[in-house]
Amino acid sequence: MLKKIMLDRGRAELLKRILREIPPDLVLTNIEFEGPEIVLYVRNRKAIAKYLDLVKNIAKKVRKRVVIRADPDVRLPPEKAKEKILEIVPKDAGVDPNGIVFDHTRGEVWIKAEKPGLIVGRGSYIRHYILAETGWRPEPQRASPLESKVLKVIMSNLLKESDYRLRFLRKLGERIHRDVIFKNNYVRITALGGFMEVGRSAILVETRESRVLLDLGINVGAGTDYDRAYPFIDIDQLNLSELDAVIVTHAHLDHIGLVPLLYKYGYRGPLYVTKPTRELMVIMIKDLIEVTQREGKYLPYSEKDLMTTILHTIPLEYGDVTDVAPDIKVTMYNAGHILGSAIVHLHIGMGLHNIVYTGDFKYAPTRLLNRAEDKFPRVETLIMESTYGATRQQSRREAEAELIRIVKKTIERKGIVLIPVFAVGRGQEIMLVLNDAISKGLIPKVDVFIEGLVNEVTAIHTQYPEYLNRNIKEMIYRGENPFTADYFHIIESGTARPDIVETKPSIILATSGMLTGGPAVEYLKLIASDPRNSLVFVGYQAEGTLGRRIKDGMRELQTVVDNKVEIIRINLEVYSIDGFSGHSDQSELLRYVRNISPKPRNIILNHGEPSAIMTLARLVSKIIRNPSTGYGANTMVYTPHLLDSIHLTARR
Amino acid sequence: MLKKIMLDRGRAELLKRILREIPPDLVLTNIEFEGPEIVLYVRNRKAIAKYLDLVKNIAKKVRKRVVIRADPDVRLPPEKAKEKILEIVPKDAGVDPNGIVFDHTRGEVWIKAEKPGLIVGRGSYIRHYILAETGWRPEPQRASPLESKVLKVIMSNLLKESDYRLRFLRKLGERIHRDVIFKNNYVRITALGGFMEVGRSAILVETRESRVLLDLGINVGAGTDYDRAYPFIDIDQLNLSELDAVIVTHAHLDHIGLVPLLYKYGYRGPLYVTKPTRELMVIMIKDLIEVTQREGKYLPYSEKDLMTTILHTIPLEYGDVTDVAPDIKVTMYNAGHILGSAIVHLHIGMGLHNIVYTGDFKYAPTRLLNRAEDKFPRVETLIMESTYGATRQQSRREAEAELIRIVKKTIERKGIVLIPVFAVGRGQEIMLVLNDAISKGLIPKVDVFIEGLVNEVTAIHTQYPEYLNRNIKEMIYRGENPFTADYFHIIESGTARPDIVETKPSIILATSGMLTGGPAVEYLKLIASDPRNSLVFVGYQAEGTLGRRIKDGMRELQTVVDNKVEIIRINLEVYSIDGFSGHSDQSELLRYVRNISPKPRNIILNHGEPSAIMTLARLVSKIIRNPSTGYGANTMVYTPHLLDSIHLTARR
Repeated sequence: MLKKIMLDRGRAELLKRILREIPPDLVLTNIEFEGPEIVLYVRNRKAIAKYLDLVKNIAKKVRKRVVIRADPDVRLPPEKAKEKILEIVPKDAGVDPNGIVFDHTRGEVWIKAEKPGLIVGRGSYIRHYILAETGWRPEPQRASPLESKVLKVIMSNLLKESDYRLRFLRKLGERIHRDVIFKNNYVRITALGGFMEVGRSAILVETRESRVLLDLGINVGAGTDYDRAYPFIDIDQLNLSELDAVIVTHAHLDHIGLVPLLYKYGYRGPLYVTKPTRELMVIMIKDLIEVTQREGKYLPYSEKDLMTTILHTIPLEYGDVTDVAPDIKVTMYNAGHILGSAIVHLHIGMGLHNIVYTGDFKYAPTRLLNRAEDKFPRVETLIMESTYGATRQQSRREAEAELIRIVKKTIERKGIVLIPVFAVGRGQEIMLVLNDAISKGLIPKVDVFIEGLVNEVTAIHTQYPEYLNRNIKEMIYRGENPFTADYFHIIESGTARPDIVETKPSIILATSGMLTGGPAVEYLKLIASDPRNSLVFVGYQAEGTLGRRIKDGMRELQTVVDNKVEIIRINLEVYSIDGFSGHSDQSELLRYVRNISPKPRNIILNHGEPSAIMTLARLVSKIIRNPSTGYGANTMVYTPHLLDSIHLTARR
Repeated sequence: MLKKIMLDRGRAELLKRILREIPPDLVLTNIEFEGPEIVLYVRNRKAIAKYLDLVKNIAKKVRKRVVIRADPDVRLPPEKAKEKILEIVPKDAGVDPNGIVFDHTRGEVWIKAEKPGLIVGRGSYIRHYILAETGWRPEPQRASPLESKVLKVIMSNLLKESDYRLRFLRKLGERIHRDVIFKNNYVRITALGGFMEVGRSAILVETRESRVLLDLGINVGAGTDYDRAYPFIDIDQLNLSELDAVIVTHAHLDHIGLVPLLYKYGYRGPLYVTKPTRELMVIMIKDLIEVTQREGKYLPYSEKDLMTTILHTIPLEYGDVTDVAPDIKVTMYNAGHILGSAIVHLHIGMGLHNIVYTGDFKYAPTRLLNRAEDKFPRVETLIMESTYGATRQQSRREAEAELIRIVKKTIERKGIVLIPVFAVGRGQEIMLVLNDAISKGLIPKVDVFIEGLVNEVTAIHTQYPEYLNRNIKEMIYRGENPFTADYFHIIESGTARPDIVETKPSIILATSGMLTGGPAVEYLKLIASDPRNSLVFVGYQAEGTLGRRIKDGMRELQTVVDNKVEIIRINLEVYSIDGFSGHSDQSELLRYVRNISPKPRNIILNHGEPSAIMTLARLVSKIIRNPSTGYGANTMVYTPHLLDSIHLTARR
């Protein structure tokens, strides 16, 4: 018997259509809207194995995500279920018997395995079979050779708050699937941050029905200048109860850094991100909280708010079409920028309008990631980042060659190569470049020491190989995890540093990437005076950072030893390689405009200094005015300022 | 002893500065913020007469509007006060002893007089003297030869709800004078209605501190197509409690028609309009409510909401600089469009930005009104209507000559001239043209019959001569009220019509202006078949109206007599004169852009069909690119679409 009595018309209609599809022998007991998913609860679990394609077929018919679960009454006791699971799952999967955890509220069993794909099986056959035999729906997790502490924290929190989370999802489900009220809809965006500037990205997308926030970052560089540090969201005026969803493209602080503030101020709606972005977000924000506290600075939220954020996070996979509001479906696509980075596609009002927001993206393959996606079902508006709108970069091939040349030379003279890296992306990319060079014999096999946040981040990378460049993914599937090569040494504490710098030749990767602090600075102090060593910058060095000053020619370091200021001469060789950026450079941005399919009729440029945006706008205008590129005659290029709004569906 | 204890710092500072200026012998008992005014209550009323310039000097120092009142305890009993007033006021003032009304809550006495200026006196001498002698602050009212029913309704409502109004004003006063919170302010406008279209005007002005709505009209022509009829204000999202003020330029329904809805939905903030606009608003909206009911259509508010609107209306005079929010001062200037029509000047953030919003305006003198104002203390953004951006009109002189020619010819052949008129503006303008022509002997002195809303509106015109063209104003001051000439006959009821059309030759002015209903249509039926008569359109005839069809050549009228459809042949002569518009035509709009002083750096065009706006934008761009016109090199012309927002203070 169905519990639901009061339903609005649209939802009642939807349920009717689903009910029609369900074979009576499944004995349906309930249908729930749980977040974006429609969950079918059945009593006859044994029958589930018979209807392998049922869920897929219903999902296709009603254009919603559908999941099947067994009624709580018919689930096996955990111990029995565990036995059954170990019996069913092929030995090759490498299931960790201690990694089988039951979520009673949702009827899920999390199974840690070396080859998690074998728990799902071809056509989800094994998953269905486990569900039919035990009443528990298996959720596989990769047993990574590198342990992620953060992932453990996240999972144990989700398990602990499973009751709350189910209630949240059901409430959200009712909201997402509420009836559409207005026939005449519109779409409008408001530039809240990261327009005509870099940092504090935030875009409000409004329709008559709903409101969605794309990204909510902070400008870390703005320090205590709060007017430049946070996007223009007046929490009062944003009317948090009116916000349907927050969708974040990737885990960099300038895109995600202010999200916990929403939860501090009472927002209890969903945050949609990819799974890797969820884990990286926790790493990045925990680190931000720590650094801010250590430096005695102010951050308007605390770790408690981050925990609330996790509870309301709904992870999506690339390509999942997900309802986030009655009139908005979102799909994430690979952006090629960092692990889990997404290009967000919004399908609004049953085809009224489609927005593609690139976030930060790399329109070229890297060692770590595939090239950003350029094909979409529909696009009327493209919102594109413009960081390097006025800059052409060294090619990736040249950059790698230069790095290898420097490393080789330094090794030959028995020196140490210190490479300051950003925790997310650049560190892993350099690891892959070194691994490739060593395996091909381009550089000798030397010890590579890795210290800082980068290790935790690397663990997340190995957790989600399906998000990585296809070569790396296949290496990991084959069991040749490039991040676990024997010359990579993970350094957990600073006490080993004096010993490490005695190991020569060697390579050290350490955070922070701009020498604003962290182990990289400590290593530099230890090796700066020896001219056989090298310091190699592989990322942008912002104005005012130690990295920038050294890059610009500063050759002395001050340090405090025993309460006395000591001066260290910088005698090592200093290099800077600009070709490792995770952003598209000018030619890649323009190529994206040329290649994107289908062609949008609004192109909105954001995330760049004014000069970069205006240069890019000029070049993009040229492309769209050339009819051979496939752009329509009334395509518009917009370069909005902060707080401008554009009515995308206005006839212009 | 001052009652105030809890005050925020800015207000405390302000009070301190005022206290310093007050002579002790006045015996100050209280200072209240009442709406935009700061009110000084004093016990020693006799001393008030000594300090004639005190209020003016304080106002100048603190840049606020300041008023002095006597403490309630020291006010004479009304009967005694009345005697005293009649004794003090010069006989020439023509005070109506039955027109002296006391408002106990506010300590005001309303005095109706033929020459209300004599109650204030040179330098407010008499006003102060009355206040000193009676303890009551005189508010003069003009005793008009034409009675306005609406004005009576308004005044009696205000008197009845005087307690509520005082509480409202004090609450509002606290809000207006609240401390400014943010140092870094911005200004942004959002096009909610009347952009790239005519009708449903509405602009939201937002700063970091406050939010003000400019106009809130309905598109009467859109009928039941509610998506086109109302501006894009989602009452939920507008967050009425966050709205500081509504400012309306004039009483036409496309600028004021949706204001009562705000009050229906719980808005209890102020509505700022000129006094004539308040009275005309009541006439127009009452009429709209009646017509809508009669035609069985839907209006989302009722007369009750209109009454609530009146209670929260704060009338301003042209030139009054008035605080409406901690960071916004508003000043109204003559717009020359209809009686009381205003160009709104917003001074924002202590000089951060100044907006001039023209509303509908006529940049040329008419018989009825002076030319719109073109000099302002500062302007960075001009928002200009563009109704006739693509149209050049007949000159006023030609239009008058043509009307006189038609009238003369028709009179000569003993016919009737029927002139359908809009109630507000056009009717009075035509009365003045006819009055002038008759007084100069250009046309014979014939009876002019006037029926419809126009009469109530004319009464309001004679109530506020200071808002009229200086010639008319002086005529009225001299006692030669042109609206009360003996050949103007006000027709109160439809029963006289058959007799009226027997009076030949004659002139009939009647509403509605587009023959969509009203007495004009009834008169037409009675006189249409006689070829000696003339029908003269003096205003725009919209698509789909009877007026338009006749103008376009239709020569038959259907009417129902005794349940039978009868066809009336239209044999009378049909004319159309386009030079009487209350809007600036293209050349006047361009002249305004050339003459406005100082020169804005943003010019935003609204209130026009897209073709009119785009034509005008092209011509305006030409002007501003010519350095001899005084415009800066980076002046921008904007043609926003509905729901676009522009950040006015962004550096572009």
